[in-house]
Amino acid sequence: MSDWHFEEQSEGVDLRIEKEKILYFGESEFQNIEIFESKTFGKIMVIDGYLMLTEKDEFIYHEMMVHVPMSIIANPENVLVIGGGDGGSVREVVKHDCVKKVDFVEIDGDVIDVSKEYLPSISCSIDDPRVNTLVEDGIKFVAETKEKYDLIIVDSTDPYIGPGEGLFTSEFYKNCNDILNEGGILVNQHESPYYENDAKVAQKMHKTMREVFPICTVYQAFIPTYPSGHWLFGFASKTVKPESDPIKGRMDGIVTKYFNEEVRKASFALPNYVKELLK
Amino acid sequence: MSDWHFEEQSEGVDLRIEKEKILYFGESEFQNIEIFESKTFGKIMVIDGYLMLTEKDEFIYHEMMVHVPMSIIANPENVLVIGGGDGGSVREVVKHDCVKKVDFVEIDGDVIDVSKEYLPSISCSIDDPRVNTLVEDGIKFVAETKEKYDLIIVDSTDPYIGPGEGLFTSEFYKNCNDILNEGGILVNQHESPYYENDAKVAQKMHKTMREVFPICTVYQAFIPTYPSGHWLFGFASKTVKPESDPIKGRMDGIVTKYFNEEVRKASFALPNYVKELLK
Repeated sequence: MSDWHFEEQSEGVDLRIEKEKILYFGESEFQNIEIFESKTFGKIMVIDGYLMLTEKDEFIYHEMMVHVPMSIIANPENVLVIGGGDGGSVREVVKHDCVKKVDFVEIDGDVIDVSKEYLPSISCSIDDPRVNTLVEDGIKFVAETKEKYDLIIVDSTDPYIGPGEGLFTSEFYKNCNDILNEGGILVNQHESPYYENDAKVAQKMHKTMREVFPICTVYQAFIPTYPSGHWLFGFASKTVKPESDPIKGRMDGIVTKYFNEEVRKASFALPNYVKELLK
Repeated sequence: MSDWHFEEQSEGVDLRIEKEKILYFGESEFQNIEIFESKTFGKIMVIDGYLMLTEKDEFIYHEMMVHVPMSIIANPENVLVIGGGDGGSVREVVKHDCVKKVDFVEIDGDVIDVSKEYLPSISCSIDDPRVNTLVEDGIKFVAETKEKYDLIIVDSTDPYIGPGEGLFTSEFYKNCNDILNEGGILVNQHESPYYENDAKVAQKMHKTMREVFPICTVYQAFIPTYPSGHWLFGFASKTVKPESDPIKGRMDGIVTKYFNEEVRKASFALPNYVKELLK
């Protein structure tokens, strides 16, 4: 008898992935965390029944989350990563030598611990000396910190999973705006424009963010293991436009499997139906 | 008891779609054809067990198949559509008033008939007076015709489904090249770069095409109901480069839900791993 991960993507639409072996299952203070091995994707992390990442394609999400903004921030020294306890975003951030400090704020210490144990290729840079890991609530952190950041990455779950809901409110975005430097950028996980339920979340998020940030748009990547495979990232700034020229030499020596400068520019070209959704 | 469409996308990865109502099931001379109603996607056409199109997102595939090349062909009067018996590609082609004649060559007349009966929003332009419908083998057609074309669209199934296999050979591409005008473009359904089996087909196709056409690349679109959602189209020409400026006025008055000029340009920006695959 085989065991399957089973995820409803929309009404009457399921993605099923066969579990070769369950490596970990545990209940943290906030959510259920599971790691299993699969034939096609390698190891998979599931939180509260939703696929978070797979070894096969996590590079797409993490490279696009990090290098798209990093390419155009003039002087990105101080970075804040909220969520992303697996360490994938942190791994991409510290590839940039210009980064001096990363405040890595994850509410669920168990996600970090499980990732360190079972997903070393993703969590490998959490112990980089520039990374300051804080196991605490990102919502509270942005309300209270006195720091300012050049890049803020909100690497959250969906609003209906675990403790992520507060990362989608106007108050949260306002606090982020307050701690974002003039030439800084905030990026976040922004759902999909395709299936109705995801699209409604993306639409609401964009509306809320647009009321806070002077420059606000979305960009996209092909992420096959997220529902529809058409995934959005939010892009927000006080002064930096997405069409800005890349900073010379910024990606020198950084090897990427998805990201390149043409892909970065192209990722902001939105299909008409997505533009309509976000209008 | 509900009935589900069940498709293996890769080893241990299934997409399941609930069938609300089966509207048609029949065996043609070449393949099984099924039309069913679904909650999320509207009507769906399945051939030999593989999802061919859905009412919800066929516009993405058909707009990108047709308007990407149409935008940059100087004088597209004579068009050949091979396959695509549903009529979706034909519908987009005849939106262009400059097109004088469309040879629409589909081997399986049942696909056309079933589409006309059950998918009128897709098949609606098959009876346009400029469309010359020929129920015959596209492989034989390109070997024998004396016509020359400004645009050739190969809207095929996968090579392992129904009679599509011969549309992926060197001989077929050579015959297409022979009937393609100097300033013309050939586009085709080109599989996905993501799951191993699809990627191998895409790789082989590209290698074969590159040996025939002086200019040859791929472009991509987010098509959620095809495996991985990351779908490729082949682009081949004797003289027309994909980065060509769009012909002024070409899209005037044509309403699209996915395609726009920025999306066209962006669709040729390939992630590093896709470039690597096609090298």
